[in-house]
Amino acid sequence: MAAGENSAARRRVLIVGAGFAGLNAARALAHAEVNITVVDRKNHHTFQPLLYQVAMAVLSAADIAQPIRAILRSPNTQVLMDEVVSFDTAARRANLKSGTVLEYDYLVLATGSTHSYFGKEEQWADLAPGLKTIEDAVEIRRRVLLAFEKAEGEMLESGSHPALNFVVIGGGPTGVELAGAISDIAKLYIRKDFRHIDPASAQVVILEGSPDLLGAYPADLRASALQQLKEIGVIVRTGQRVTDIQPGYVIVGEERIDSVVTLWAAGVQPSPLGKMLGVPLTPKGNVIVDDHLHPEGHPEIFVCGDLAHAMSVGQHVPGVAQPAMQMGDYAGRTIKVESEGGRMKKPFYYFDKGDMATIGRASAIANVKWPFRAHMSGFLAWCAWLVVHIFFLIGFRNRLSVFRNWAFTYLFFQDGVRLITGSQDLPGWGAGDGTDPIRHLTTRPLEP
Amino acid sequence: MAAGENSAARRRVLIVGAGFAGLNAARALAHAEVNITVVDRKNHHTFQPLLYQVAMAVLSAADIAQPIRAILRSPNTQVLMDEVVSFDTAARRANLKSGTVLEYDYLVLATGSTHSYFGKEEQWADLAPGLKTIEDAVEIRRRVLLAFEKAEGEMLESGSHPALNFVVIGGGPTGVELAGAISDIAKLYIRKDFRHIDPASAQVVILEGSPDLLGAYPADLRASALQQLKEIGVIVRTGQRVTDIQPGYVIVGEERIDSVVTLWAAGVQPSPLGKMLGVPLTPKGNVIVDDHLHPEGHPEIFVCGDLAHAMSVGQHVPGVAQPAMQMGDYAGRTIKVESEGGRMKKPFYYFDKGDMATIGRASAIANVKWPFRAHMSGFLAWCAWLVVHIFFLIGFRNRLSVFRNWAFTYLFFQDGVRLITGSQDLPGWGAGDGTDPIRHLTTRPLEP
Repeated sequence: MAAGENSAARRRVLIVGAGFAGLNAARALAHAEVNITVVDRKNHHTFQPLLYQVAMAVLSAADIAQPIRAILRSPNTQVLMDEVVSFDTAARRANLKSGTVLEYDYLVLATGSTHSYFGKEEQWADLAPGLKTIEDAVEIRRRVLLAFEKAEGEMLESGSHPALNFVVIGGGPTGVELAGAISDIAKLYIRKDFRHIDPASAQVVILEGSPDLLGAYPADLRASALQQLKEIGVIVRTGQRVTDIQPGYVIVGEERIDSVVTLWAAGVQPSPLGKMLGVPLTPKGNVIVDDHLHPEGHPEIFVCGDLAHAMSVGQHVPGVAQPAMQMGDYAGRTIKVESEGGRMKKPFYYFDKGDMATIGRASAIANVKWPFRAHMSGFLAWCAWLVVHIFFLIGFRNRLSVFRNWAFTYLFFQDGVRLITGSQDLPGWGAGDGTDPIRHLTTRPLEP
Repeated sequence: MAAGENSAARRRVLIVGAGFAGLNAARALAHAEVNITVVDRKNHHTFQPLLYQVAMAVLSAADIAQPIRAILRSPNTQVLMDEVVSFDTAARRANLKSGTVLEYDYLVLATGSTHSYFGKEEQWADLAPGLKTIEDAVEIRRRVLLAFEKAEGEMLESGSHPALNFVVIGGGPTGVELAGAISDIAKLYIRKDFRHIDPASAQVVILEGSPDLLGAYPADLRASALQQLKEIGVIVRTGQRVTDIQPGYVIVGEERIDSVVTLWAAGVQPSPLGKMLGVPLTPKGNVIVDDHLHPEGHPEIFVCGDLAHAMSVGQHVPGVAQPAMQMGDYAGRTIKVESEGGRMKKPFYYFDKGDMATIGRASAIANVKWPFRAHMSGFLAWCAWLVVHIFFLIGFRNRLSVFRNWAFTYLFFQDGVRLITGSQDLPGWGAGDGTDPIRHLTTRPLEP
């Protein structure tokens, strides 16, 4: 039984994925004379740009995630927590995991991307978790915090502990943000909490395969980011391809780098749902769409967000939040126009306001393109980052909560969500051979 | 190597468990000339009286849990995230899971209690989770919210869904609070979120084995609680012993009651660490302590909180938060006095200020004994409950956060943490046989 059976005349819009693109498509249609069904595997939308702050104990999951139902309350919208397992694009049907079959007149596919371990998912995924979901964030938080706890315990028992090396694989915005945040935790927020280890002895290493950190940014901002990372003690090694990940260490070429916690920020691959459409894909698996976001031969399908390979004014549209929102909105508006008997003439145009990435507390880079053009660095860029992210967060309540958490974290040096939940095991703890040159063992006596 | 090796003259105090008793013992000793080691399996203290609000999507985990290290910052205190596996009370040593051996001059054992499934842990624990930890709370939240999602999906697919029966086993304060909160979610907070099911059709049943709900309260308050539960539609069945729990239903005598989510609030058993002391226990396993909280023959050991079987002025001290705090504080003060060469003359005295339990939104019962004696019910009792719990929460930041969350939840009917994380499976979903008389199937068309 398909959605909208009660009003056969209305077009049925199926939106798969409630990320930035999917949500914005649904919102653009909130007052349209259509019946919308939104399908997502999760019950919540995740504000991914702040996910690393959940991983780093600054924010709670609920600060950046909201039930999709609570966001999409329009009476023409129904939300299903389910998973698409296949499409029959000829019959315009989607088959869900639960067995439900949904018919559609329009399909908006916006299922984004997932981690790519370059074919080594099975071996590497557990050793080096990536950051895409709330569950990922809580797992990373658990591992990072647990490393300090284990070091404290081992120091007390044996007088030494494995070097607190944290290795972040991948030097894009996520890698840089994770690295900066681990450094903040170690050097600022838990400084006074341990008696036997010196958390500030922690060493964060970014391994980037390409020659440049933050390759998408202009050269002056890349240089500034490198400098800012250097100032907070993060080691950046570019042109270093990781060839193996093992419990307790990673291999780069001939070199072995000990690692108590390894994090993956190196690559993503498109959601497998793109393949199910039976349309032309890029070699990586992104769905090639025309300037109206349709895959070849399917004017009733829109592919939005980073699953799509789209062009705007001759430029490839990047796979980040801003264009995803705009693509979703464009798809929604197009469907609205068509449902009213019109035709969308304007092709999709990506209005690029710029990009920003934080580098730990009070430092960032921003490549501002609107409302003025500027390359910003350091504290100013960081303030801009704070304002923009509060603005784009969904819901007054969440804004309030994030604002409060940031105030406590940045003004009072208190991170607020330092909870270790789940297992007490850390894969590969102590499996390093201790030969790493950046080993620090610092004992502090129990009393002053 | 034991704590305090740098100052052999100082007494070494080992506190096991950082619940209310353990924390208060450490705090009473914060300025004493002793070396304190606090060992807990978790890195955080959990404010258990509000745990059910985490399970019920009102509060975030971080609102009611704080890193033990962040609470106990005194320079004479070290915190270890570890687990005691055995004691050698003759040698005054504790053996930890990590292999560390801790010597002590004083031991404060405050490891509380855990769920008791009356010997059926293996069969029942997964089918009917109890509520003791943050992990438990997140799991209960997942199950309760998932039941509504699954019902919505099934309604769309097949036009019917299993009755949304939630069975709470146990009619003590936790059972009543869980039942009331599920009723709130179904009838108030998610009312407008679904298109196909009517969440208000959910039916909450409390099964209590003894003849009385909330047996520890006076008769008039028990009656009031029953009345208040009736008003919000919770079915209370007392004198009903559950003989079996299966996926999708529970058995009471000859009767089978369908249940999409079964929760366990029926019984606790003392932590197994009590047995390891080799001292007299109650049949249930609580450590029998004298009027100075010492187990027989061990003036250097204090057992505090609900692991202890203690008497105060001829009355059994109940296993709740208030006496746990007072016992911890008493143990700490005693050690302080003795470390200064004195002797604690006064026995432990439980100063009972009363008890309270909430029954969903805006209703509660309170048996107030201090600063005045009163039996309060309904809205007034609920206001008192709010004030007391904000007051006892640890940390200004958490108080602020809980206050904000309550304001949104109770003023604006928005629960804030409605996240389903982890698996999408619900044990026993749909395994009921549908014969239950309180089955409701309500279809609402997609459009008005």
